[in-house]
Amino acid sequence: MSNDTEQKYLVVFQPSGRQGYVPAGQTLLDAARDMGVEIESICGGQQTCGKCKIVADVGNFSKYGITSQEENLSPAGGDERDYWTKRKRDPGSYRLSCAACVLGDLVINVPEESQARKQIVRKSATVREIEIDPAIRQYFVKVQPAALGNRQGDWERLQESLAKTHHLSGLQIDYFALRDLQKVLRQGNWEATVTVWNGQEVIRVQPGYAEGVYGFAVDIGSTTVAGHLLDLRTGQILATESMMNPQTTYGEDLMSRISYGMMNPDGVDKMHKAIIEALSKLLKRATRAAKLQPEDVTELVLVGNTTMVDLLLGIDPVELGGAPFALPTNDAVDVKARDLGIVAHRGANVHILPVEGGHVGADNMAVVIAESPQVAEDIVLIVDIGTNAEILVGNKDHLLSASSPTGPAFEGGEISHGMRAADGAIEKVRIDRETLTPRFRVIGEDRWSDEMPAHEIQAAGICGSGIIDLVAELFACGIIDAGGKFVRETPSPNFRVTRQVGEYIVATAEQTSTGKEIVITQQDIRAIQFAKSALYTGAKLLMERRGVEKVDRVLLAGGFGAHIDKLRAMMIGLFPDCDLENVYPVGNSAGDGAVLCLLSRERRQRARQLARWIEYVETAIEPNFQARFVDALGLPHTTDAFPHLQGLIPERPAAEDVNNEDRRRERRRDRLSRRERVVVEE
Amino acid sequence: MSNDTEQKYLVVFQPSGRQGYVPAGQTLLDAARDMGVEIESICGGQQTCGKCKIVADVGNFSKYGITSQEENLSPAGGDERDYWTKRKRDPGSYRLSCAACVLGDLVINVPEESQARKQIVRKSATVREIEIDPAIRQYFVKVQPAALGNRQGDWERLQESLAKTHHLSGLQIDYFALRDLQKVLRQGNWEATVTVWNGQEVIRVQPGYAEGVYGFAVDIGSTTVAGHLLDLRTGQILATESMMNPQTTYGEDLMSRISYGMMNPDGVDKMHKAIIEALSKLLKRATRAAKLQPEDVTELVLVGNTTMVDLLLGIDPVELGGAPFALPTNDAVDVKARDLGIVAHRGANVHILPVEGGHVGADNMAVVIAESPQVAEDIVLIVDIGTNAEILVGNKDHLLSASSPTGPAFEGGEISHGMRAADGAIEKVRIDRETLTPRFRVIGEDRWSDEMPAHEIQAAGICGSGIIDLVAELFACGIIDAGGKFVRETPSPNFRVTRQVGEYIVATAEQTSTGKEIVITQQDIRAIQFAKSALYTGAKLLMERRGVEKVDRVLLAGGFGAHIDKLRAMMIGLFPDCDLENVYPVGNSAGDGAVLCLLSRERRQRARQLARWIEYVETAIEPNFQARFVDALGLPHTTDAFPHLQGLIPERPAAEDVNNEDRRRERRRDRLSRRERVVVEE
Repeated sequence: MSNDTEQKYLVVFQPSGRQGYVPAGQTLLDAARDMGVEIESICGGQQTCGKCKIVADVGNFSKYGITSQEENLSPAGGDERDYWTKRKRDPGSYRLSCAACVLGDLVINVPEESQARKQIVRKSATVREIEIDPAIRQYFVKVQPAALGNRQGDWERLQESLAKTHHLSGLQIDYFALRDLQKVLRQGNWEATVTVWNGQEVIRVQPGYAEGVYGFAVDIGSTTVAGHLLDLRTGQILATESMMNPQTTYGEDLMSRISYGMMNPDGVDKMHKAIIEALSKLLKRATRAAKLQPEDVTELVLVGNTTMVDLLLGIDPVELGGAPFALPTNDAVDVKARDLGIVAHRGANVHILPVEGGHVGADNMAVVIAESPQVAEDIVLIVDIGTNAEILVGNKDHLLSASSPTGPAFEGGEISHGMRAADGAIEKVRIDRETLTPRFRVIGEDRWSDEMPAHEIQAAGICGSGIIDLVAELFACGIIDAGGKFVRETPSPNFRVTRQVGEYIVATAEQTSTGKEIVITQQDIRAIQFAKSALYTGAKLLMERRGVEKVDRVLLAGGFGAHIDKLRAMMIGLFPDCDLENVYPVGNSAGDGAVLCLLSRERRQRARQLARWIEYVETAIEPNFQARFVDALGLPHTTDAFPHLQGLIPERPAAEDVNNEDRRRERRRDRLSRRERVVVEE
Repeated sequence: MSNDTEQKYLVVFQPSGRQGYVPAGQTLLDAARDMGVEIESICGGQQTCGKCKIVADVGNFSKYGITSQEENLSPAGGDERDYWTKRKRDPGSYRLSCAACVLGDLVINVPEESQARKQIVRKSATVREIEIDPAIRQYFVKVQPAALGNRQGDWERLQESLAKTHHLSGLQIDYFALRDLQKVLRQGNWEATVTVWNGQEVIRVQPGYAEGVYGFAVDIGSTTVAGHLLDLRTGQILATESMMNPQTTYGEDLMSRISYGMMNPDGVDKMHKAIIEALSKLLKRATRAAKLQPEDVTELVLVGNTTMVDLLLGIDPVELGGAPFALPTNDAVDVKARDLGIVAHRGANVHILPVEGGHVGADNMAVVIAESPQVAEDIVLIVDIGTNAEILVGNKDHLLSASSPTGPAFEGGEISHGMRAADGAIEKVRIDRETLTPRFRVIGEDRWSDEMPAHEIQAAGICGSGIIDLVAELFACGIIDAGGKFVRETPSPNFRVTRQVGEYIVATAEQTSTGKEIVITQQDIRAIQFAKSALYTGAKLLMERRGVEKVDRVLLAGGFGAHIDKLRAMMIGLFPDCDLENVYPVGNSAGDGAVLCLLSRERRQRARQLARWIEYVETAIEPNFQARFVDALGLPHTTDAFPHLQGLIPERPAAEDVNNEDRRRERRRDRLSRRERVVVEE
């Protein structure tokens, strides 16, 4: 044991194994910092928070030539003993690294919970490892009390403490934090916990020592709004809540909301207020579930498609309905929650992710952040299916994105008996290859329709995944041809032709909740063909631009992607051929990406860079988009383009009339949309 | 005439006389910028704003060896001709410097209105010359329209234009400006006028070319709130409005407002809301008077004493009533008007001046900015009299400040017939040296009381300046002695002794509006002695600290300072001796300082530096303050300390009992304030 300050000792930090020579008498916390070993500390070495606790390793030091290290660490002083006494833990095994001083060679173990910038792993198709480094951090400070003769204001003395203890400088203070500063400092008897945003602004000051920084990550979907409440120190998800997007009152899909905004002078404002109110409600529910208050949330990350973000910000999305169009901004947006009217902490910031451009929104950027295609070696296709499908193709060398207007068919829209994925919706369908009769399963029921009494089934309609199943099965059984047209001669009791038009009965009147049959019509099949062709064509165009003939992996993002039968989806040509082993539903990637950006400043920075790096392709203006779209309307009927469908699809030529039929259909659609336009302009 | 780009020509700019050689073909605007001649321009050289107009001088060029300069400037092109045609002005005499190119040697006259950073002179005791460089500026831009294939957002393209045309970079945008951006750019057909705060944040975007940046400077007094609306391009005051501070409902003086806040749970909030509402009202009145809207005001400067600023920010001023105390901050504060709830432009900023410390507030800093004692060669004393008097002593080498608790006597408080300086208040008093009878003048009446019928006078009370006159006159006539005590033997019909206490009748029952006499009592005189002694002692202490025995100049700031008779004020010892020639009332210096800080970023910066440089002295803790205060209670009765009062005051010894009397009075005051304290704590 020596107090000679010239003397230096070897200190090894485990598990990183970093080592260096440290002047005698230095604290372990300082030693760790000097070596780049990041140990957590809220109080900045004031023996208050206990976040910097370490273990003087007793097992493993002999290999460093240390014979005993019992006396190589200064004994715990009064403050540290008090700290451990309160917590009934033996200071012998744990020590506060801000208090323990180096008096000899040491091997120190930094337990996981004491490591700053913790790595947390989030499971998904891709394993995600992230370093926790959120935009907001808490710092505990002791502030010099007001004194006669010291003319510095409270804020100036607080800044002095923050600079001294935590090396923070050039700070601003949010007005509301300044307003409450005097009261808080005195309440805490000149001790306070300060929340700092982005290393630049004090947004909250709490009296005394306080622990807990919380954030809220929300994916604002056109239909569903889902939010995760996170502990930003540990990365733990404390609560997850979701609700319907209240804007659905004003229009089911994006175009109808844009129209609503055009036709009603206060339409945009109403939809803006509706989503703001919903976010406040969701935040309240989530904080309640975690036994917290909305005021405890000091940072939010919001993602959504371009229309959702426009309405969130109170911007009229009419621009998005026209061409050419531009976004308000394609960079990330930081705005005070209070300016938007979201009820959270008054100083809370809302971060909205940047976008690549066009109709590809912040939610797509969140998907990129979650799935990291920009680091992939293999060629990845990511599709996020909604009213607009967002498509990404590429790998670390070149990544392209596009948006394809699939329309609402996959969400049950424009389908005779279509409905949302809710209880009672037919979500799975199989057709017997011999009898050509169907069996199905509805959401909320484990049994198939042929395993239960008909009157118990209560089918209400068909949702997107059910329709995909149905079209794939109809084709596999030869009930429809490769052009999507019903084969009139189909010998099935469930098939019939009424007024020259074929239809297939999926559920009989006894099997439904309405007492009426659920059928799929020729027109429904056409709607699905249009939707899947838009998606497929977009993907193929990006692949062509990328210079690849096939993709190695397909990631199906979003709730829809998680529920579809990937084989049958490929059978109808929803996405280009791929080994089904390498097709993954990745769940709500947009939400995951939002969570990651809540936890990591580096991810936010990366998103801003990726927004500029990813090549956005305006597929609508590609010269051969229309022709390719028409070509892709048919169902995969040869294994040329779909080698992985070998034996699964009937290989036969497309019906000759498919193209004529399509052209007729095309013209009708044009007329329809013209009519729609007239309505909108009234 | 030559288009050779290698060729350079002499260009002389008048009136500055700056000259240099300029490449042929360069515009005069660019040439001026290269030479550091600042010519105004909103549109950045797009021949739209006309702010950069110059005159090709026709008279004065021969001395530079130029024989003719008619052909040395490029002729006006289409855009410039259009500009002048619309304005019916001959383009021959005026030219747009952004359009006119150098084709030969030239002498150019930059008219005053085209000079950027105009010098404007504001008249006062000190002549103030300032360069207009406000925190907000307007820039006209043409933005690239949205186009297919360009994935930049509107904000990104706006930034590009601002960088290219106006060399602005690293800008942020206020949320509300971003929200309206798309609409505004399209309304203006991709032309817009952008208001930028502090070269860092876009706070307003207007469609097309717009002109007009306006600011509001307000001095929030305890009693009166006065605001000036300014054109920030020209420095012109467009409107001045004032109103009662609505907080007077909650307490006449600062201490009673602090008490109100302590005794009522929502007291602070009520007073906060009252002043915010008042500011919105005042701003509305001022903009209406100038035919503008509140939304046209994008910058505010507010000054006030520490209590006023606390209440403005919604901070409980209770801290200011205790000791030791600290201010929330002593630096300048910038806060969005919308966060305070002031109705102005949504992106408007409120700037509050920094303070030196203690009870010396932002209004005192404004006085410093207006009077610039920090550049004085001679020793200046500045006093701003209110319930607290702020005192500054020093010059460019060393400046000290202090605050002295004068109490409300000078505002008519604690005086038997005291009142505010309003119609009917006795503001001037003279006592005949022979008859010892008074004559007086009331506010709102030009005649003296002896020049008009008694019943027409309608005197209502005595205001501060009247009381000072009265005390000085009573002493000069020997009605009171140097201790301030009535001389019982006084042979005046207006003097009487009732129940052992003397009083002097100023106005008879016929002369008053109430039909009752207006008198001054022994107690009233004592109150004035206390007030003037606090001020005098503070000033003397600062002089001592500064190492000077006399001051060269006295500036009396504030409305009170403007109305008092400076000779009589010195006769009662309100301020230390000075040649009366060098005693100036400077009017509402605090308001002037606020105006200057609205017009000049440099002044704001200077204020922040001065706040740290000026030495704040806590007079209350000076060890000999109390003794000096008691010593200064008497009236100046020798010319030792007041050589300039030679022949004006009766030189005789102080009455022996003055000190005893004072001590009794002291004790009573102690009791009183203890009682007050009890009430407060109830």
